[in-house]
Amino acid sequence: MRKIGFIGLGAMGLPMAANLARRQMPIVGFDVRASSIAKLEDEGGRGAPSVKEAANGADVLVLMVVNADQVDQVLFEGGTLDVLAPDATVIVMATCAPARVAAMAARVEATGRGFIDAPVSGGVVGATAGSLTIMAAAPTPVFAKYRPLLEALGSKLFHVGETPGQGAAMKTVNQLLCGVHIAAAAEGLALAEQAGVDPALALEILSGSAASSWMLQNRGPRMVADDGAVTSALDIFVKDLGIVLDAGRAERMGLPLSAAAHQLFLAASGFGLGARDDSQVIELYRALRRPKNPAE
Amino acid sequence: MRKIGFIGLGAMGLPMAANLARRQMPIVGFDVRASSIAKLEDEGGRGAPSVKEAANGADVLVLMVVNADQVDQVLFEGGTLDVLAPDATVIVMATCAPARVAAMAARVEATGRGFIDAPVSGGVVGATAGSLTIMAAAPTPVFAKYRPLLEALGSKLFHVGETPGQGAAMKTVNQLLCGVHIAAAAEGLALAEQAGVDPALALEILSGSAASSWMLQNRGPRMVADDGAVTSALDIFVKDLGIVLDAGRAERMGLPLSAAAHQLFLAASGFGLGARDDSQVIELYRALRRPKNPAE
Repeated sequence: MRKIGFIGLGAMGLPMAANLARRQMPIVGFDVRASSIAKLEDEGGRGAPSVKEAANGADVLVLMVVNADQVDQVLFEGGTLDVLAPDATVIVMATCAPARVAAMAARVEATGRGFIDAPVSGGVVGATAGSLTIMAAAPTPVFAKYRPLLEALGSKLFHVGETPGQGAAMKTVNQLLCGVHIAAAAEGLALAEQAGVDPALALEILSGSAASSWMLQNRGPRMVADDGAVTSALDIFVKDLGIVLDAGRAERMGLPLSAAAHQLFLAASGFGLGARDDSQVIELYRALRRPKNPAE
Repeated sequence: MRKIGFIGLGAMGLPMAANLARRQMPIVGFDVRASSIAKLEDEGGRGAPSVKEAANGADVLVLMVVNADQVDQVLFEGGTLDVLAPDATVIVMATCAPARVAAMAARVEATGRGFIDAPVSGGVVGATAGSLTIMAAAPTPVFAKYRPLLEALGSKLFHVGETPGQGAAMKTVNQLLCGVHIAAAAEGLALAEQAGVDPALALEILSGSAASSWMLQNRGPRMVADDGAVTSALDIFVKDLGIVLDAGRAERMGLPLSAAAHQLFLAASGFGLGARDDSQVIELYRALRRPKNPAE
């Protein structure tokens, strides 16, 4: 690889780009925030003054932006695609709806360039440690060629399919379960509270039984006692469960649990909790319950 | 303790009663199936020819029957309660709605006798090993008096509240999460299948991520490839999520995820899956999806 363009140096993108720079990969990064570019340069990477300069002549372009709209804007609105090397490969790692990814891939592949659909999970911790889970979909030869680059970003690399959009589908399923599990933990702990069971004791019992989930153990303590920390904002699940339901529509699949969970996160956001930690969806249940002793 | 009556020697009750017999506790068991009584006798326990004889003069009566209707029938329809020792304690370990348990306790306590609401989780494996989780609610002195008996049945003993019904509420919350997690696993894996992602690979990825749950790891493999084994029948969750929703009604709490999951299990039961393993709720999603290539 002669040049790797990397667009999007946010909470996830910056540590990912830094991991490539540390391995002496020829990375040139861009972000709308100049301070993020400076941080990449501190880590040994190069910065560029615009998307187009980061992309110019690159044989790989990695996009770790916020959503599908930003991917479309970066790739298709400023002529970025045309300045990439003719045999370049675009790697989209942002969380997007599967149908949107399939459409991006078709436009990129129509120019003779390659496309890897490679969303991640593992959060900032995984991005920093290079231990992300990467769910990649691309034709096997394309995937094989860029395996070393992907392995520099995530220690759990999976080739989930030949067709771009299947990685996004896998990430969508991941978010489906994460979102439903958070909402379920809130529903269960709120019912325990309402029944007069100490929620900390309830959490201890549930965490050691068949009722447990990763999210119950991770978010449960902040549901029982909010410490104000925001690990991941509640509005992220308004967005991600929205993507889950978009995927269900595209596949003509009813997803009743996801729909119920999305309604809860939506209502919680409307209730003013959108910027709070996603565990605080439990506050919606608390707000809706009757006082145990109305006379008091 | 001079005599422990034990009613209900089914898949759970028999190994529980046998654990008491093996510890030389003075157990006298009854079940409608004579063969179950014979098995208890093989384990060193005594059998009785009727509920009333098992209860007669007992200072503890343990009920491990199927549901609240059976508890009511055993306790209140044949005069059982009256033949217990005047200072006896009734221990209900069946899964019942919290309001039903509170009503039973009130009737028992009105005769001057004690009541412990002590549902369990951990299945047949836990019942046999004496490693059940027991969620007990009773006034502290009553709980303390029977702690050794309960510890003979379950290694994870929790005193969740002073008021009978709170144990049932805790068990209800446990079943809420178990049921929602099974339905969510089915929804997620079915969406992965529909997107053309190998469901075994999807399960591997999800099991190692923040999307994981105990139920995903336990039921997921049977969703991907049904081996025909029935660990727990699907209709159990039609019942148990029904109890969850009854508890929500009694508390005037909307439980939207539980309601969505209950509808799924109900529909799956109506589709003919009631006696199959509960993991097979995924068949409902498969039945409802459109063919990927309708022309074929």
